Amino acid sequence: MSSAALKQTAEDEIRDLMDRWTKAVRNHDLDTIMSYYAPDVVSYDAIVKLQFKGIDEYRKHWEYCMTLCSGPMIFDVHEVKVVADGNTAFAHFLSRCGGVDADGKEQAGWMRGTAGYRRTNGRWQIVHEHFSAPFDMESGKALLGLAP
Amino acid sequence: MSSAALKQTAEDEIRDLMDRWTKAVRNHDLDTIMSYYAPDVVSYDAIVKLQFKGIDEYRKHWEYCMTLCSGPMIFDVHEVKVVADGNTAFAHFLSRCGGVDADGKEQAGWMRGTAGYRRTNGRWQIVHEHFSAPFDMESGKALLGLAP
Repeated sequence: MSSAALKQTAEDEIRDLMDRWTKAVRNHDLDTIMSYYAPDVVSYDAIVKLQFKGIDEYRKHWEYCMTLCSGPMIFDVHEVKVVADGNTAFAHFLSRCGGVDADGKEQAGWMRGTAGYRRTNGRWQIVHEHFSAPFDMESGKALLGLAP
Repeated sequence: MSSAALKQTAEDEIRDLMDRWTKAVRNHDLDTIMSYYAPDVVSYDAIVKLQFKGIDEYRKHWEYCMTLCSGPMIFDVHEVKVVADGNTAFAHFLSRCGGVDADGKEQAGWMRGTAGYRRTNGRWQIVHEHFSAPFDMESGKALLGLAP
Protein backbone atom coordinates (compact mmCIF):
# COMPACT_ATOMS: atom_id res chain seq x y z
CA MET A 1 0.00 0.00 0.00
CA SER A 2 1.11 3.61 -0.51
CA SER A 3 1.84 5.69 2.58
CA ALA A 4 -1.40 7.64 1.95
CA ALA A 5 -3.36 4.37 1.84
CA LEU A 6 -1.66 3.11 5.03
CA LYS A 7 -2.50 6.39 6.76
CA GLN A 8 -6.15 6.09 5.64
CA THR A 9 -6.30 2.48 6.84
CA ALA A 10 -4.89 3.48 10.25
CA GLU A 11 -7.46 6.29 10.56
CA ASP A 12 -10.29 3.91 9.62
CA GLU A 13 -9.07 1.42 12.26
CA ILE A 14 -9.09 4.14 14.94
CA ARG A 15 -12.63 5.24 13.96
CA ASP A 16 -13.76 1.62 14.16
CA LEU A 17 -12.15 1.23 17.62
CA MET A 18 -13.87 4.44 18.73
CA ASP A 19 -17.27 3.17 17.49
CA ARG A 20 -16.88 -0.07 19.44
CA TRP A 21 -15.66 1.80 22.54
CA THR A 22 -18.62 4.27 22.53
CA LYS A 23 -21.06 1.35 22.14
CA ALA A 24 -19.46 -0.43 25.11
CA VAL A 25 -19.75 2.78 27.19
CA ARG A 26 -23.45 3.13 26.31
CA ASN A 27 -23.96 -0.54 27.24
CA HIS A 28 -22.12 -0.18 30.60
CA ASP A 29 -20.00 -3.10 29.39
CA LEU A 30 -16.98 -2.62 31.64
CA ASP A 31 -14.95 -5.63 30.42
CA THR A 32 -15.27 -4.54 26.77
CA ILE A 33 -14.48 -0.91 27.64
CA MET A 34 -11.33 -1.96 29.50
CA SER A 35 -10.20 -4.28 26.67
CA TYR A 36 -9.33 -1.20 24.57
CA TYR A 37 -6.83 0.26 27.05
CA ALA A 38 -3.09 -0.44 27.30
CA PRO A 39 -1.86 -1.70 30.71
CA ASP A 40 0.11 1.53 31.19
CA VAL A 41 -2.72 3.92 30.20
CA VAL A 42 -2.55 7.39 31.76
CA SER A 43 -5.92 9.09 31.94
CA TYR A 44 -6.93 12.65 32.79
CA ASP A 45 -10.66 12.36 33.53
CA ALA A 46 -13.17 15.20 33.95
CA ILE A 47 -13.76 14.46 37.63
CA VAL A 48 -12.17 13.43 40.94
CA LYS A 49 -8.36 13.58 40.44
CA LEU A 50 -5.56 14.95 38.27
CA GLN A 51 -4.72 11.58 36.74
CA PHE A 52 -5.33 7.84 36.81
CA LYS A 53 -2.25 5.71 36.13
CA GLY A 54 -2.44 2.13 34.90
CA ILE A 55 -5.38 0.00 33.91
CA ASP A 56 -6.22 -1.23 37.44
CA GLU A 57 -6.67 2.27 38.85
CA TYR A 58 -8.57 3.34 35.74
CA ARG A 59 -10.90 0.33 35.87
CA LYS A 60 -11.88 1.26 39.47
CA HIS A 61 -12.66 4.78 38.28
CA TRP A 62 -14.79 3.49 35.37
CA GLU A 63 -16.68 1.30 37.87
CA TYR A 64 -17.34 4.39 40.01
CA CYS A 65 -18.50 6.37 36.95
CA MET A 66 -20.98 3.62 36.07
CA THR A 67 -22.59 3.99 39.52
CA LEU A 68 -23.19 7.70 38.78
CA CYS A 69 -25.23 6.86 35.72
CA SER A 70 -27.18 3.67 36.30
CA GLY A 71 -30.06 4.12 33.81
CA PRO A 72 -29.99 4.40 30.00
CA MET A 73 -26.89 6.34 29.07
CA ILE A 74 -26.41 9.05 26.47
CA PHE A 75 -22.90 8.97 25.05
CA ASP A 76 -22.32 10.24 21.52
CA VAL A 77 -19.18 11.61 19.92
CA HIS A 78 -19.31 14.54 17.48
CA GLU A 79 -16.84 16.57 15.39
CA VAL A 80 -14.41 13.64 15.51
CA LYS A 81 -10.94 14.27 14.08
CA VAL A 82 -8.47 11.40 13.77
CA VAL A 83 -4.76 11.79 12.94
CA ALA A 84 -2.88 8.51 12.43
CA ASP A 85 0.40 7.35 10.94
CA GLY A 86 2.45 4.20 11.36
CA ASN A 87 1.83 2.94 14.88
CA THR A 88 0.79 6.24 16.51
CA ALA A 89 -2.59 8.00 16.41
CA PHE A 90 -4.67 10.51 18.28
CA ALA A 91 -8.27 11.64 18.09
CA HIS A 92 -10.33 14.46 19.52
CA PHE A 93 -14.07 14.93 19.72
CA LEU A 94 -16.93 16.61 21.55
CA SER A 95 -19.02 14.17 23.54
CA ARG A 96 -22.64 14.52 24.59
CA CYS A 97 -22.90 12.69 27.84
CA GLY A 98 -25.71 12.11 30.32
CA GLY A 99 -28.74 10.05 31.18
CA VAL A 100 -32.51 10.03 31.50
CA ASP A 101 -34.04 11.36 34.72
CA ALA A 102 -36.96 9.90 36.75
CA ASP A 103 -39.47 11.78 34.53
CA GLY A 104 -37.95 10.23 31.39
CA LYS A 105 -36.33 13.51 30.38
CA GLU A 106 -32.85 13.58 28.86
CA GLN A 107 -30.23 15.30 31.06
CA ALA A 108 -27.08 15.65 29.02
CA GLY A 109 -24.15 18.02 28.68
CA TRP A 110 -21.23 18.51 26.35
CA MET A 111 -17.66 17.64 27.20
CA ARG A 112 -14.38 17.42 25.29
CA GLY A 113 -12.39 14.23 24.72
CA THR A 114 -8.89 13.48 23.41
CA ALA A 115 -7.43 9.99 23.05
CA GLY A 116 -3.91 8.81 22.19
CA TYR A 117 -3.33 5.39 20.59
CA ARG A 118 -0.33 3.15 20.02
CA ARG A 119 -0.24 0.00 17.88
CA THR A 120 1.62 -2.86 19.56
CA ASN A 121 1.92 -6.29 17.89
CA GLY A 122 -0.58 -5.17 15.27
CA ARG A 123 -3.23 -4.08 17.77
CA TRP A 124 -4.28 -0.51 18.52
CA GLN A 125 -4.70 0.33 22.19
CA ILE A 126 -5.68 3.53 23.99
CA VAL A 127 -2.59 4.69 25.93
CA HIS A 128 -3.93 8.10 26.96
CA GLU A 129 -7.31 9.76 27.48
CA HIS A 130 -8.26 13.27 28.47
CA PHE A 131 -11.87 14.28 29.23
CA SER A 132 -12.96 17.63 30.56
CA ALA A 133 -15.40 20.49 30.80
CA PRO A 134 -14.03 24.04 30.75
CA PHE A 135 -14.59 26.16 33.86
CA ASP A 136 -15.61 29.76 34.49
CA MET A 137 -12.78 31.91 35.90
CA GLU A 138 -15.10 34.08 38.05
CA SER A 139 -17.17 31.40 39.79
CA GLY A 140 -14.67 28.53 39.51
CA LYS A 141 -17.57 26.39 38.30
CA ALA A 142 -17.44 23.84 35.51
CA LEU A 143 -19.35 25.09 32.46
CA LEU A 144 -21.71 22.15 31.97
CA GLY A 145 -24.38 24.01 29.99
CA LEU A 146 -22.31 24.78 26.88
CA ALA A 147 -23.23 23.43 23.45
CA PRO A 148 -21.23 23.50 20.20
CA MET B 1 17.96 5.08 10.16
CA SER B 2 16.12 2.12 11.68
CA SER B 3 12.44 2.58 12.52
CA ALA B 4 13.36 2.64 16.26
CA ALA B 5 15.90 5.42 15.60
CA LEU B 6 13.37 7.37 13.50
CA LYS B 7 10.81 7.05 16.32
CA GLN B 8 13.39 8.26 18.88
CA THR B 9 14.31 11.20 16.64
CA ALA B 10 10.64 12.16 16.26
CA GLU B 11 10.15 12.00 20.04
CA ASP B 12 13.24 14.15 20.62
CA GLU B 13 11.95 16.70 18.09
CA ILE B 14 8.60 16.90 19.93
CA ARG B 15 10.33 17.37 23.31
CA ASP B 16 12.44 20.14 21.79
CA LEU B 17 9.34 21.84 20.36
CA MET B 18 7.65 21.55 23.77
CA ASP B 19 10.68 23.15 25.49
CA ARG B 20 10.62 26.08 23.10
CA TRP B 21 6.83 26.44 23.43
CA THR B 22 6.92 26.47 27.28
CA LYS B 23 9.71 29.09 27.22
CA ALA B 24 7.62 31.26 24.87
CA VAL B 25 4.62 30.91 27.22
CA ARG B 26 6.71 31.97 30.24
CA ASN B 27 8.03 34.94 28.23
CA HIS B 28 4.51 36.03 27.12
CA ASP B 29 5.94 35.88 23.58
CA LEU B 30 2.71 35.59 21.64
CA ASP B 31 4.22 35.54 18.12
CA THR B 32 6.57 32.69 19.03
CA ILE B 33 3.79 30.76 20.82
CA MET B 34 1.54 31.04 17.77
CA SER B 35 4.33 29.97 15.38
CA TYR B 36 4.03 26.39 16.71
CA TYR B 37 0.35 25.94 15.79
CA ALA B 38 -1.12 24.68 12.52
CA PRO B 39 -3.60 27.04 10.79
CA ASP B 40 -6.40 24.52 11.42
CA VAL B 41 -5.59 23.89 15.12
CA VAL B 42 -8.55 22.82 17.27
CA SER B 43 -8.06 23.61 20.94
CA TYR B 44 -10.00 22.61 24.04
CA ASP B 45 -8.81 25.09 26.66
CA ALA B 46 -9.42 24.96 30.43
CA ILE B 47 -11.59 28.08 30.44
CA VAL B 48 -14.30 30.07 28.59
CA LYS B 49 -15.63 27.77 25.79
CA LEU B 50 -15.87 24.20 24.56
CA GLN B 51 -13.42 24.72 21.70
CA PHE B 52 -11.38 27.23 19.70
CA LYS B 53 -11.16 26.50 15.99
CA GLY B 54 -8.39 27.83 13.79
CA ILE B 55 -5.32 29.87 14.60
CA ASP B 56 -7.04 33.30 14.45
CA GLU B 57 -9.62 32.41 17.11
CA TYR B 58 -6.96 30.70 19.22
CA ARG B 59 -4.58 33.67 19.02
CA LYS B 60 -7.35 35.97 20.39
CA HIS B 61 -7.83 33.54 23.27
CA TRP B 62 -4.09 33.43 24.01
CA GLU B 63 -4.07 37.26 24.04
CA TYR B 64 -6.93 37.20 26.55
CA CYS B 65 -5.08 34.63 28.71
CA MET B 66 -1.98 36.87 28.78
CA THR B 67 -4.09 39.70 30.26
CA LEU B 68 -5.08 37.37 33.15
CA CYS B 69 -1.46 36.85 34.12
CA SER B 70 0.50 40.02 33.49
CA GLY B 71 3.41 39.54 35.94
CA PRO B 72 6.13 36.86 36.05
CA MET B 73 4.54 33.62 34.96
CA ILE B 74 4.98 30.11 36.35
CA PHE B 75 4.56 27.50 33.62
CA ASP B 76 6.36 24.18 33.99
CA VAL B 77 5.55 20.80 32.50
CA HIS B 78 6.01 17.57 34.48
CA GLU B 79 5.53 13.83 33.92
CA VAL B 80 5.82 14.40 30.17
CA LYS B 81 5.09 11.41 27.95
CA VAL B 82 5.66 11.65 24.19
CA VAL B 83 4.48 9.07 21.63
CA ALA B 84 5.66 9.68 18.05
CA ASP B 85 5.91 7.77 14.80
CA GLY B 86 6.24 8.85 11.20
CA ASN B 87 4.47 12.19 10.87
CA THR B 88 2.09 11.88 13.84
CA ALA B 89 2.77 12.44 17.54
CA PHE B 90 1.03 13.26 20.78
CA ALA B 91 2.19 14.23 24.24
CA HIS B 92 0.62 14.56 27.65
CA PHE B 93 1.87 16.25 30.82
CA LEU B 94 0.90 17.89 34.07
CA SER B 95 1.48 21.61 34.09
CA ARG B 96 2.09 23.87 37.05
CA CYS B 97 0.64 27.18 36.10
CA GLY B 98 0.27 30.51 37.87
CA GLY B 99 1.92 33.74 38.80
CA VAL B 100 3.33 35.83 41.63
CA ASP B 101 0.91 37.92 43.71
CA ALA B 102 1.37 41.52 44.95
CA ASP B 103 3.18 40.21 48.06
CA GLY B 104 5.68 38.31 45.89
CA LYS B 105 4.12 34.96 46.82
CA GLU B 106 3.73 32.21 44.18
CA GLN B 107 0.11 31.39 43.36
CA ALA B 108 0.09 28.30 41.19
CA GLY B 109 -2.07 25.28 40.53
CA TRP B 110 -1.80 22.03 38.63
CA MET B 111 -3.57 21.34 35.35
CA ARG B 112 -3.43 18.61 32.72
CA GLY B 113 -2.31 19.09 29.12
CA THR B 114 -2.46 16.95 25.97
CA ALA B 115 -1.13 18.01 22.58
CA GLY B 116 -1.44 16.42 19.13
CA TYR B 117 1.21 17.06 16.44
CA ARG B 118 1.42 16.51 12.70
CA ARG B 119 4.57 16.87 10.55
CA THR B 120 3.88 18.71 7.29
CA ASN B 121 6.67 19.44 4.79
CA GLY B 122 9.21 18.30 7.38
CA ARG B 123 7.94 20.63 10.13
CA TRP B 124 6.08 19.55 13.27
CA GLN B 125 3.06 21.67 14.18
CA ILE B 126 0.56 21.50 17.03
CA VAL B 127 -2.81 20.60 15.48
CA HIS B 128 -4.66 19.96 18.73
CA GLU B 129 -4.42 21.01 22.37
CA HIS B 130 -6.45 20.09 25.42
CA PHE B 131 -5.97 21.77 28.81
CA SER B 132 -8.14 21.24 31.84
CA ALA B 133 -8.66 20.94 35.55
CA PRO B 134 -10.95 18.20 36.83
CA PHE B 135 -14.11 19.28 38.68
CA ASP B 136 -15.91 18.12 41.80
CA MET B 137 -19.25 16.41 41.07
CA GLU B 138 -20.95 17.71 44.26
CA SER B 139 -20.07 21.38 44.10
CA GLY B 140 -19.52 21.64 40.34
CA LYS B 141 -16.30 23.52 41.12
CA ALA B 142 -12.99 23.10 39.32
CA LEU B 143 -10.46 21.32 41.56
CA LEU B 144 -7.64 23.84 41.42
CA GLY B 145 -5.90 22.78 44.63
CA LEU B 146 -4.82 19.29 43.54
CA ALA B 147 -1.16 18.28 43.32
CA PRO B 148 0.39 15.13 41.83
